[in-house]
Amino acid sequence: MSRTRKETDSFGPIDVPATAYWGAQTQRSIRNFPIGGERMPLPLVHALGLVKLCAARVNARNGGLDEVTANAIVTAAGEVAEGKHDDQFPLVVWQTGSGTQTNMNANEVIAGRANELLTGTRGGKSPVHPNDHVNMGQSSNDSFPTAMHIAAAREVTGSLVPALRHLHGLLAAHAAGWDDIVKIGRTHLQDATPLTLGQEFSGYARQLEDGIARVEAVLPRLCRLAQGGTAVGTGLNAPPGFAEDFAAEAATATGLPFATAPNKFEALATHDTMVELSGALNVLAVSLTKIANDLRLLGSGPRCGLGELRLPENEPGSSIMPGKVNPTQCEALTMVAAQVMGNHMAVTVGGLQGHLELNVFKPLIAYNVLQSIRLLSDAAMSFADRAVAGLEPDRERIAALLEQSLMLVTALAPELGYDNAASIAKHAHATGKTLLEAGLELGLVDEETFRRLVRPEEMVRRQPRG
Amino acid sequence: MSRTRKETDSFGPIDVPATAYWGAQTQRSIRNFPIGGERMPLPLVHALGLVKLCAARVNARNGGLDEVTANAIVTAAGEVAEGKHDDQFPLVVWQTGSGTQTNMNANEVIAGRANELLTGTRGGKSPVHPNDHVNMGQSSNDSFPTAMHIAAAREVTGSLVPALRHLHGLLAAHAAGWDDIVKIGRTHLQDATPLTLGQEFSGYARQLEDGIARVEAVLPRLCRLAQGGTAVGTGLNAPPGFAEDFAAEAATATGLPFATAPNKFEALATHDTMVELSGALNVLAVSLTKIANDLRLLGSGPRCGLGELRLPENEPGSSIMPGKVNPTQCEALTMVAAQVMGNHMAVTVGGLQGHLELNVFKPLIAYNVLQSIRLLSDAAMSFADRAVAGLEPDRERIAALLEQSLMLVTALAPELGYDNAASIAKHAHATGKTLLEAGLELGLVDEETFRRLVRPEEMVRRQPRG
Amino acid sequence: MSRTRKETDSFGPIDVPATAYWGAQTQRSIRNFPIGGERMPLPLVHALGLVKLCAARVNARNGGLDEVTANAIVTAAGEVAEGKHDDQFPLVVWQTGSGTQTNMNANEVIAGRANELLTGTRGGKSPVHPNDHVNMGQSSNDSFPTAMHIAAAREVTGSLVPALRHLHGLLAAHAAGWDDIVKIGRTHLQDATPLTLGQEFSGYARQLEDGIARVEAVLPRLCRLAQGGTAVGTGLNAPPGFAEDFAAEAATATGLPFATAPNKFEALATHDTMVELSGALNVLAVSLTKIANDLRLLGSGPRCGLGELRLPENEPGSSIMPGKVNPTQCEALTMVAAQVMGNHMAVTVGGLQGHLELNVFKPLIAYNVLQSIRLLSDAAMSFADRAVAGLEPDRERIAALLEQSLMLVTALAPELGYDNAASIAKHAHATGKTLLEAGLELGLVDEETFRRLVRPEEMVRRQPRG
Amino acid sequence: MSRTRKETDSFGPIDVPATAYWGAQTQRSIRNFPIGGERMPLPLVHALGLVKLCAARVNARNGGLDEVTANAIVTAAGEVAEGKHDDQFPLVVWQTGSGTQTNMNANEVIAGRANELLTGTRGGKSPVHPNDHVNMGQSSNDSFPTAMHIAAAREVTGSLVPALRHLHGLLAAHAAGWDDIVKIGRTHLQDATPLTLGQEFSGYARQLEDGIARVEAVLPRLCRLAQGGTAVGTGLNAPPGFAEDFAAEAATATGLPFATAPNKFEALATHDTMVELSGALNVLAVSLTKIANDLRLLGSGPRCGLGELRLPENEPGSSIMPGKVNPTQCEALTMVAAQVMGNHMAVTVGGLQGHLELNVFKPLIAYNVLQSIRLLSDAAMSFADRAVAGLEPDRERIAALLEQSLMLVTALAPELGYDNAASIAKHAHATGKTLLEAGLELGLVDEETFRRLVRPEEMVRRQPRG
Repeated sequence: MSRTRKETDSFGPIDVPATAYWGAQTQRSIRNFPIGGERMPLPLVHALGLVKLCAARVNARNGGLDEVTANAIVTAAGEVAEGKHDDQFPLVVWQTGSGTQTNMNANEVIAGRANELLTGTRGGKSPVHPNDHVNMGQSSNDSFPTAMHIAAAREVTGSLVPALRHLHGLLAAHAAGWDDIVKIGRTHLQDATPLTLGQEFSGYARQLEDGIARVEAVLPRLCRLAQGGTAVGTGLNAPPGFAEDFAAEAATATGLPFATAPNKFEALATHDTMVELSGALNVLAVSLTKIANDLRLLGSGPRCGLGELRLPENEPGSSIMPGKVNPTQCEALTMVAAQVMGNHMAVTVGGLQGHLELNVFKPLIAYNVLQSIRLLSDAAMSFADRAVAGLEPDRERIAALLEQSLMLVTALAPELGYDNAASIAKHAHATGKTLLEAGLELGLVDEETFRRLVRPEEMVRRQPRG
Repeated sequence: MSRTRKETDSFGPIDVPATAYWGAQTQRSIRNFPIGGERMPLPLVHALGLVKLCAARVNARNGGLDEVTANAIVTAAGEVAEGKHDDQFPLVVWQTGSGTQTNMNANEVIAGRANELLTGTRGGKSPVHPNDHVNMGQSSNDSFPTAMHIAAAREVTGSLVPALRHLHGLLAAHAAGWDDIVKIGRTHLQDATPLTLGQEFSGYARQLEDGIARVEAVLPRLCRLAQGGTAVGTGLNAPPGFAEDFAAEAATATGLPFATAPNKFEALATHDTMVELSGALNVLAVSLTKIANDLRLLGSGPRCGLGELRLPENEPGSSIMPGKVNPTQCEALTMVAAQVMGNHMAVTVGGLQGHLELNVFKPLIAYNVLQSIRLLSDAAMSFADRAVAGLEPDRERIAALLEQSLMLVTALAPELGYDNAASIAKHAHATGKTLLEAGLELGLVDEETFRRLVRPEEMVRRQPRG
Repeated sequence: MSRTRKETDSFGPIDVPATAYWGAQTQRSIRNFPIGGERMPLPLVHALGLVKLCAARVNARNGGLDEVTANAIVTAAGEVAEGKHDDQFPLVVWQTGSGTQTNMNANEVIAGRANELLTGTRGGKSPVHPNDHVNMGQSSNDSFPTAMHIAAAREVTGSLVPALRHLHGLLAAHAAGWDDIVKIGRTHLQDATPLTLGQEFSGYARQLEDGIARVEAVLPRLCRLAQGGTAVGTGLNAPPGFAEDFAAEAATATGLPFATAPNKFEALATHDTMVELSGALNVLAVSLTKIANDLRLLGSGPRCGLGELRLPENEPGSSIMPGKVNPTQCEALTMVAAQVMGNHMAVTVGGLQGHLELNVFKPLIAYNVLQSIRLLSDAAMSFADRAVAGLEPDRERIAALLEQSLMLVTALAPELGYDNAASIAKHAHATGKTLLEAGLELGLVDEETFRRLVRPEEMVRRQPRG
Repeated sequence: MSRTRKETDSFGPIDVPATAYWGAQTQRSIRNFPIGGERMPLPLVHALGLVKLCAARVNARNGGLDEVTANAIVTAAGEVAEGKHDDQFPLVVWQTGSGTQTNMNANEVIAGRANELLTGTRGGKSPVHPNDHVNMGQSSNDSFPTAMHIAAAREVTGSLVPALRHLHGLLAAHAAGWDDIVKIGRTHLQDATPLTLGQEFSGYARQLEDGIARVEAVLPRLCRLAQGGTAVGTGLNAPPGFAEDFAAEAATATGLPFATAPNKFEALATHDTMVELSGALNVLAVSLTKIANDLRLLGSGPRCGLGELRLPENEPGSSIMPGKVNPTQCEALTMVAAQVMGNHMAVTVGGLQGHLELNVFKPLIAYNVLQSIRLLSDAAMSFADRAVAGLEPDRERIAALLEQSLMLVTALAPELGYDNAASIAKHAHATGKTLLEAGLELGLVDEETFRRLVRPEEMVRRQPRG
């Protein structure tokens, strides 16, 4: 019994594994692109399934497809969209820059499955043809970018934003809960005037809040779909209304506000909106790096660092140093952030090289943006649950550091003048004395005035001068 | 007669040129940072002048400054804001990461000028003191990022967006004016189905329209001002209401919707919004590269390239090849775009390294973002006026290429099927024949059908299938 | 029958799948880092196997391990090095930044397998203990960077350089074979003076030759191994001579000139050499982009582009345009190149953030560098075999374009002067005439002089002036 | 009296300031590129002067130029090379991508000055013509990249390497001088096993040593000159031997080992070697960031940070916090490093977009590479003299921290086993006790064994196990 079957395309016949749903063009691509091992991202594959499903519904409604064919395609495409045929998408990212081969992979798998549903025989081009029926009214050049936008929009709204909201909630809770803990501030990594630990965390919470807004600001443009532009944007071979009807189907199927792109030429030839989205992810990477770095600085120690925070102990930290615990969630998160920044550059380089009617860095752009979204989503969630949730302030250490600080001298400046206050701080630093001792010794302040002005707990709220 | 005078700070006395308005800290910075030659950008210097002016007004109103002092500061700061003392800002970008020395430069110049106004003697710290009076209620840590946001917002709204609108207008005019010129489309740089030249340009126009929207989407966050946070975000030494009053003054003085930042900790410790703005500029760089590259491809020749467009001849193109004319405006624009992408990476690297209460890459970030804005503004304007405005289509060449194309075969596919249409195209390609000849020879189409279906002027509008 | 067993570490007991060789720390990491799906690269896993094998040999020789234990470790580690336990390395890249958990994964798998060899029971810590025996004399902090260098050096020498040499050979063959084909040159994408197609390809060949030299120039530093530095570089708990003996074992086992790093502090705390290697890969990405772009420009058409080269047809190019063939190998290669550039940024961002005794972006750096090497190797090979090897010049088209060119006028400049030659070219361009016609019409040259000077086949070799 | 004079080029006459040496093409470029304010870097202008000087010498020797003309050109070009006409190079970076206008600027200024020397009248094209004489045997396409390589090679050898050596010397001196200071190590920013301060600095010194080697490794390729390739690499219009003779002249004039590029097509069409050099600078930026970050971490405080190092106090640190001193040289250096990384991306983006016979991102690439070199040179020197030279260890603080550390437990592991040692450390951490107390309490070690094994001063050298 044969383990393969013959499939054909305009280049001739080719052997395909008998168990595969795919056809000649997919098989040819497997042979032609033995590059790396990174397969096309599954959210994109599922979105392509959705594209074919919605297209079939529109084609059925406008008479392009008969009901039997349409139903078979809808069923098969729905299975792809639901992830039931993930193993039927063997192609790597590093293929044709339009994603044509993955679009054909989808067309072939859906036709092959639809034919199985209709005839009992897997594969082939009849009665359902991958190009003439599954791809009806479409081109790779519009289907693939449509799938890119659908996949990215679903990942952003379904994974990233919820993860960021979760992290934001935990940070905001610390901001509220630790608002009574007065601590030394640090600027330039040098001691500065005090603030509360809650205020410090309120900054992180605000970064997340803004980060969510930045990503959501891209959604209106991300929800514009290229479908209906076909090969070069003119919509040749797509029936009138196809673009609009398709977008409405996609919106219904996903619950997201998809609409047809106002200009199909831009939608095929550029990926400016994907570059924009990548830029919003880049800001998130920057924000999360800042937060993670602060946590590992504040949690440094246990005995020879800043030691103001205790990070949860999740695992043994060292294969040689017994008892060591490390800020591993911070490290995973900052590695993810570095990857997102690198991906942003890859997307930028891909985005800038579109030529004339088509940008041919589509799979690269899809791969990087979808990886960035997934990594940020997962890492933010893990960081939230395994690092932020379990943070504990070391109140004793915080209080001890605050008391020693020289920068409380700033509270003297409005009354004594900047230059006198500076003299007191410098004298204290040089002699190792307290500020009060130094001020008295220099005769620049009396004890009553000092105690009236230097009250850290008052210095963390905006002070009346008068 | 002495060519220098003595000025002092907490580090002691130092000689300053007699003609300078600045004081000890500026002079010390000149000595301490002999690095490169890139001075702090003038839009930032002017914005710092505005900061000091607005602060003095608020301090006068709330009783912090007497009227005489306040008026002198307002006058001197106004001169700085108007660019009358640009030569008094000798400091380079590569200094302390908080911009403290440039903030002190502004404080000293304004105090030095105010003292001249009040006493006839330039410089010094009395009666107007750079820290106690000019910097009253402020810190470098809030003044400098405030100036960054003000400068960027003014450059975006005053230079960049108008330049982009101008370029957009010219592109949109071509999109409208050339909508009757049917030409060959190209995907993968290979011949594809036709579109109109106007359609091609409509894609560029859309890129600009979206690019403007992307930059403008940052403005709400960019218009948030850090002022009032002072050293670490708590507002220590700033009077109640200072932040809000300052923002209102800044809004009045500029006509831009400035408001106080909702979280001062975030506003000092991060520059996420500057990274975000840089990301929007990065998308513009990507868009403009695409457009410029298309123009030089379409304008390639004059005899051995695509030759569909004629670019204006602005200058001799070669020092060795007489008569050569090159797409120099495209080249200047794409070099600017590459710089903007590089600057975006510098801003990202600076943005990610903030620690605790302060990001100390402020001058770097300001320098790069303001350079990117200026370069994009200038280059977009120059490209618009010296390349886009004078473009001329070569209608004969466009028509000749269209006629030869094999991809008109796509119009046959819905009726003949994809596989038959492919056979015709391949046969024509192999034999050098026209599509019609090839179709007839293969017996796959008759002339009447061919002429009914293959009509390029019909292929550029969406076709009914039925 | 139980499907799991208990394993323990200093955090307590944890359930591990009964079939797994790994232990408690690996299992804990699976739970703690549910981030993305990118597993630690296999070349790194294999290199870690090699590290453990070499270490066991050294420890056996110096008496640290008894012969039975050492032999079991050597056998088990050898299996890991040979890829027999790839499925036992389930951990993702996004873990602790020192790679500790993957080092422990290796320690546990090797101990678990050695214990099975010795006792028949899989897993556990006795008689062979993952830390005390497999990790003897080591720390993650030196083992992991050692594995990074070994893996990268093997991938560079075993995959990348051979692929580049193969591509270089094909390009050099075309340079030699096509040296008689005179064609129009193009600068600024505009027609310029002629050169031969062989000369054009000689430039590409030189790029590859230099690219190989650049990568090989990193090898001396890449072949320095951190092993022996243990936790912070001092070598605490490693016996005297361990570092040198280990490097000698690694050199023997691989045939590569590994040596112990001259400074272990640098070798743990920085990855400057990996950043350097990534920079060499970045140059390759730039070179390959140039070459691939030139091929798709020269191969553009078939009828409306430059059309000087015919690229091999490997697959159908379009799902909607029948008969279309695209430069897909060029596209795959340039997507790979963009990824390598992005990876370079990720590596740079990871490299710059080392702190004190350890850089904790090790897995990120390893992942990106190894991905870049693999992608460049595979894509260069595929591009060589599926695009470059089958290139064919279209001699007729090349000759036709050359004949029309105006830039042959350059040959007149030395004799007529630049300004007169420019007048002829401009007149020909404006009127559509040939250069000869224009020159005669302007009275600036006679036919004999023209024919003596304007000989394209002579213009492609350096000309005597006199 | 007229303030302007007429100059002409193939586009016609144009008014030029009477005082200017430049001619029509320079003036046209001023008008055509009102973009930014970044002028062509002076090292490049000086190198162009050198190019013209060397070319004139070769042309005189081979009879192309008569002696009078040649001497006048040599004199004028020498003045440009020495910086005597810097104000005569008004053109910005953002011009034609071949640098043609700056090459013509040089040709025109040198001709204009030579004419003044010969006739007393400034400017013009007679008796010395900018193209026919000054540019004899040259094209912008070879002269400009030649100047790029000469400028970069001189800046690297004359500024960068000396600055790096200076910094290396200071770091190495600290490595030697502080080798007796045992201190706590830190990995993951968490306490680890000890090392000496000298060991820590030996890592930095090694980074610099390798960094110098990396930059010097580029010099052989950087010393290859494009001159002699003329317009497209064939050397059309350059006499035989011109390329070799020119390179010899350049080598003599500079003392650097310049040689003619083995492949002129590569030398014009790509800037792979500039991308490579930029990559080496990128590694330096990464290295210097690591070192500067470590210094600010170790110098953090003065009372609430790690406080192991005292950084020199160079200036007042804060406009609001009296007495504050900040690590400003570290900040300037890390900002410079971020700029270099950004510039590296700009260079990469410019490098990848060369097409066919010419890369037209030359001015961008020159500007960024030369800025990076200058910034790194200056900042390394300033950092060396104003931060590293004056560093002082706080021996008391270092000793106090070391004594408290829990990671000294690592010394127990070889004898007690990893698991027992971990228990002691965890118990000490949980109870706040010393390691000895915890070990005794758990009955896992006796005091004599503890004191024998836990000797920090012994832990910083490689320990015999047996």
